[in-house]
Amino acid sequence: MDTPPISRFPVPALEDLPPDISARILAVQEKSGFVPNVFLALAHRPAEFRAFFAYHDALMDKEGGLSKAEREMIVVATSAANQCLYCVVAHGAILRIRAKHKLVADQVATNWRKADISPRQRAMLDFALRIALGAQEVDETDFHALEAAGFTREDAWDIAAIAAFFGLSNRMANLMSLRPNDEFYLMGRLPK
Amino acid sequence: MDTPPISRFPVPALEDLPPDISARILAVQEKSGFVPNVFLALAHRPAEFRAFFAYHDALMDKEGGLSKAEREMIVVATSAANQCLYCVVAHGAILRIRAKHKLVADQVATNWRKADISPRQRAMLDFALRIALGAQEVDETDFHALEAAGFTREDAWDIAAIAAFFGLSNRMANLMSLRPNDEFYLMGRLPK
Amino acid sequence: MDTPPISRFPVPALEDLPPDISARILAVQEKSGFVPNVFLALAHRPAEFRAFFAYHDALMDKEGGLSKAEREMIVVATSAANQCLYCVVAHGAILRIRAKHKLVADQVATNWRKADISPRQRAMLDFALRIALGAQEVDETDFHALEAAGFTREDAWDIAAIAAFFGLSNRMANLMSLRPNDEFYLMGRLPK
Amino acid sequence: MDTPPISRFPVPALEDLPPDISARILAVQEKSGFVPNVFLALAHRPAEFRAFFAYHDALMDKEGGLSKAEREMIVVATSAANQCLYCVVAHGAILRIRAKHKLVADQVATNWRKADISPRQRAMLDFALRIALGAQEVDETDFHALEAAGFTREDAWDIAAIAAFFGLSNRMANLMSLRPNDEFYLMGRLPK
Amino acid sequence: MDTPPISRFPVPALEDLPPDISARILAVQEKSGFVPNVFLALAHRPAEFRAFFAYHDALMDKEGGLSKAEREMIVVATSAANQCLYCVVAHGAILRIRAKHKLVADQVATNWRKADISPRQRAMLDFALRIALGAQEVDETDFHALEAAGFTREDAWDIAAIAAFFGLSNRMANLMSLRPNDEFYLMGRLPK
Amino acid sequence: MDTPPISRFPVPALEDLPPDISARILAVQEKSGFVPNVFLALAHRPAEFRAFFAYHDALMDKEGGLSKAEREMIVVATSAANQCLYCVVAHGAILRIRAKHKLVADQVATNWRKADISPRQRAMLDFALRIALGAQEVDETDFHALEAAGFTREDAWDIAAIAAFFGLSNRMANLMSLRPNDEFYLMGRLPK
Repeated sequence: MDTPPISRFPVPALEDLPPDISARILAVQEKSGFVPNVFLALAHRPAEFRAFFAYHDALMDKEGGLSKAEREMIVVATSAANQCLYCVVAHGAILRIRAKHKLVADQVATNWRKADISPRQRAMLDFALRIALGAQEVDETDFHALEAAGFTREDAWDIAAIAAFFGLSNRMANLMSLRPNDEFYLMGRLPK
Repeated sequence: MDTPPISRFPVPALEDLPPDISARILAVQEKSGFVPNVFLALAHRPAEFRAFFAYHDALMDKEGGLSKAEREMIVVATSAANQCLYCVVAHGAILRIRAKHKLVADQVATNWRKADISPRQRAMLDFALRIALGAQEVDETDFHALEAAGFTREDAWDIAAIAAFFGLSNRMANLMSLRPNDEFYLMGRLPK
Repeated sequence: MDTPPISRFPVPALEDLPPDISARILAVQEKSGFVPNVFLALAHRPAEFRAFFAYHDALMDKEGGLSKAEREMIVVATSAANQCLYCVVAHGAILRIRAKHKLVADQVATNWRKADISPRQRAMLDFALRIALGAQEVDETDFHALEAAGFTREDAWDIAAIAAFFGLSNRMANLMSLRPNDEFYLMGRLPK
Repeated sequence: MDTPPISRFPVPALEDLPPDISARILAVQEKSGFVPNVFLALAHRPAEFRAFFAYHDALMDKEGGLSKAEREMIVVATSAANQCLYCVVAHGAILRIRAKHKLVADQVATNWRKADISPRQRAMLDFALRIALGAQEVDETDFHALEAAGFTREDAWDIAAIAAFFGLSNRMANLMSLRPNDEFYLMGRLPK
Repeated sequence: MDTPPISRFPVPALEDLPPDISARILAVQEKSGFVPNVFLALAHRPAEFRAFFAYHDALMDKEGGLSKAEREMIVVATSAANQCLYCVVAHGAILRIRAKHKLVADQVATNWRKADISPRQRAMLDFALRIALGAQEVDETDFHALEAAGFTREDAWDIAAIAAFFGLSNRMANLMSLRPNDEFYLMGRLPK
Repeated sequence: MDTPPISRFPVPALEDLPPDISARILAVQEKSGFVPNVFLALAHRPAEFRAFFAYHDALMDKEGGLSKAEREMIVVATSAANQCLYCVVAHGAILRIRAKHKLVADQVATNWRKADISPRQRAMLDFALRIALGAQEVDETDFHALEAAGFTREDAWDIAAIAAFFGLSNRMANLMSLRPNDEFYLMGRLPK
């Protein structure tokens, strides 16, 4: 079988992109050794590309009470609930690396309740899934459960915003049938 | 009963905001006669505020095959499915104004299948709801149904992206218990 | 677009109706200034018309622990869950008038958990939705929650019966694609 | 174990009832040899009792395109979907008698798709379940499927109205934990 | 209407079966007076037949904390949730006989929450349904509820294994459209 | 964090097991280089162990129209729908090896509709998921779709039986919180 295209929509060539976008793509290629397909596929719409990654960076690169690995756990757990192949595979790889844990991504993607995570992280993922699947029902009970697990109100915003932002990302990836790069599947699985 | 706060989270004073954000807020106040609460509530997080409105503008102000009123229909229908009070009320008002139709927002919010809309718009909302509620199942059948109703592939992206972006917005509004301004409820309901 | 018919089924002329039914319709016209479409559409079946309104009056006009406005809240919240355009719009209007509150109907219809209602009313609507969506699971826990909010067992019956009766009404309205009168949309929204 | 009460709510004594209600109850006792518990339990609220049975008779005793047995099939199938013990047991008995078929009630209650019924009756139950569980989605496709099976528009109303009315009945029975009379369980199961 | 076939798949003649299978079938015929259709239908696949009944016997004939009647309650309640006609009818008959209770099978099949069973049995069925419908969510809370009702951990395994095994059986019966023998419908309903 | 136990239930020592069971376990260890935890955990109940693996072998080792890799695809797709960590991880490994495809297991587990599989395999998984999640609704339409994809009726049984058997396995694994061996996570991911 030939490799399917990375998106149902047209994928621009790097040289046809606005300079700020091609610069960001070259930077990620420099750092990762390859260009994750989401960059190329979203570059089909430059204005949306810029807003998407600005939002991404505002949530994933900021300071705050959640570790980098915990943020990736939220992405993987909610993306699995939304059956988003790209995000589960790509962020699964990042989670393995950030958490320095070879197993945790597959565990969180399949059934976060059975994963090798702390009770605090379990509470975090319970809340993230509430936001992903039933945000309209969230009330003080949910905030109290987070507080009991040691999270602040600002942490609650962070958890929810990551779940909500990747809910957007999951829907766009499913629209595009966005294909994960083959490289992601093995990243973080091998002993150093 | 006292009016509840507009958000569960702290709401900054205008004078404490970065200048670009206060400028945008003053501009919207100038144009609308009041400041929609979403601007104040999201300003609690300036970086997210900027990305949010950049994304919003990229989708809602762009050229394309969907009319302004049709974009608001998508917002209202998907926000109702997500039980988001702020978006249903605020974008319901905008829909009434854009569509010059006093009834259509309540119709679309309650049951879009019974609204006074064209078959093309019905197909548009069917697809928008697929993205909002089951994007993982979208396949060629859905794209063919859109084409049969006269939409291009780029229109399909627009519909999906609006549904996905407001899915993010709905989740944040439900997190915050974001309160719609009283002004929205009556806008567009009176004869000129 | 021409106005669609008020029902998928034949709508009788007033002069062709049995006298008791035309009398009731004239009385409501006298009182309201127009004939709500549900009267004309259900008159297609006189025996069912009589039973329907007898049931309606037994629940909505009786004495009891629930105020008139609270009964309308139940109608609006459960009809929204059943996506019944007629009942949400028509009883939303009545709710605004009975509650003397211009915003509450849209709030209750969109997400009752975020409405400007008392904790007692929140408990009432939680129970009403249980009846509408999962009556088979109701048990003593539900009755205790109602008691804790100050309701008697007879109040519980009232709440449940209103939810159950409008569940019937919602299904018939969706069968007929019953169209709300334009008048309802604006009723109770203007300052006196 | 002692026999549980027939209702969570007070059950009036026959001699305390308004004469029209006690007359109806005595008539049914005369005809059936016992008083079905629904009559006693609903008599707790005389006005609702009268409307309930008027509605029941308007749907179940009228002329029309559906046989008596087919109407009971609708009751059993939709009451099973609503997990209503009283209606499944009591109307299962009536269905066995009306259809002169000892097996059909248990079949329809468990999985109507596997019952010994005609394709016409299968289409009828498919529509009845649509009304019971998703009336908001009903559209012309459903009416065309009914027509293809030989039903008129008036038959469609009958099917829907029976499903909707017993949806009300199911919710009240579950509220009350209404207990079926022991007699119903065996009725219609024995060879003549 | 002719009696439909007992299975969508070929049903072997007794004389064509391997001797161990025909021996088991003759033994059950000897004991019951007829051959339950599941034996004939599954004999289409001898190796699966042997494993199926070995599993069945390991769960249903073993010693342990659950009575024979309680095991059948689990079968009936979970098979009803899976809308499996064969298992509800056949095991409903066995439940009536084992429990010496003419009503309990119909009660458990329709709504186990309303059945004439003990609080212990209610807790058992709550857990069985959790396994049948949402085993991925089971956690310590569920085990504590079972313990509070007097069950050991080994009992928990028994309850879950019966629910899981009949989940397999229900799916196969629905695949085959397996028809219950007419004899089952009346078994255990008559006074001795 | 210490490694959690492989099961919530007692895990027997190899030397305490009946000889046929320890022999099977030693054989699998010989072949695989380790003992998959499901063997040890299920050995807690020897009679169930024997039936479970007899059933497993009858379905997974038989001749027939499905390739070994296709059978594992069914296991992975349905186990993911049931959120069974053990089966997704262990059979994902086997799928990678049988299909000689390093990516397909993660694809099938996350969203089989996006996997690198043939249209025939897509139809196979559509049917397997129908059995796993809604076997009660299966009818001739499903069999015709399978036939159109080139499957026989016997293949349909195979697909359904594998989905049904692993539905049992998934429920038992979730009951036990059965932990996959670390070895599985990396198997089949590396180039030869």
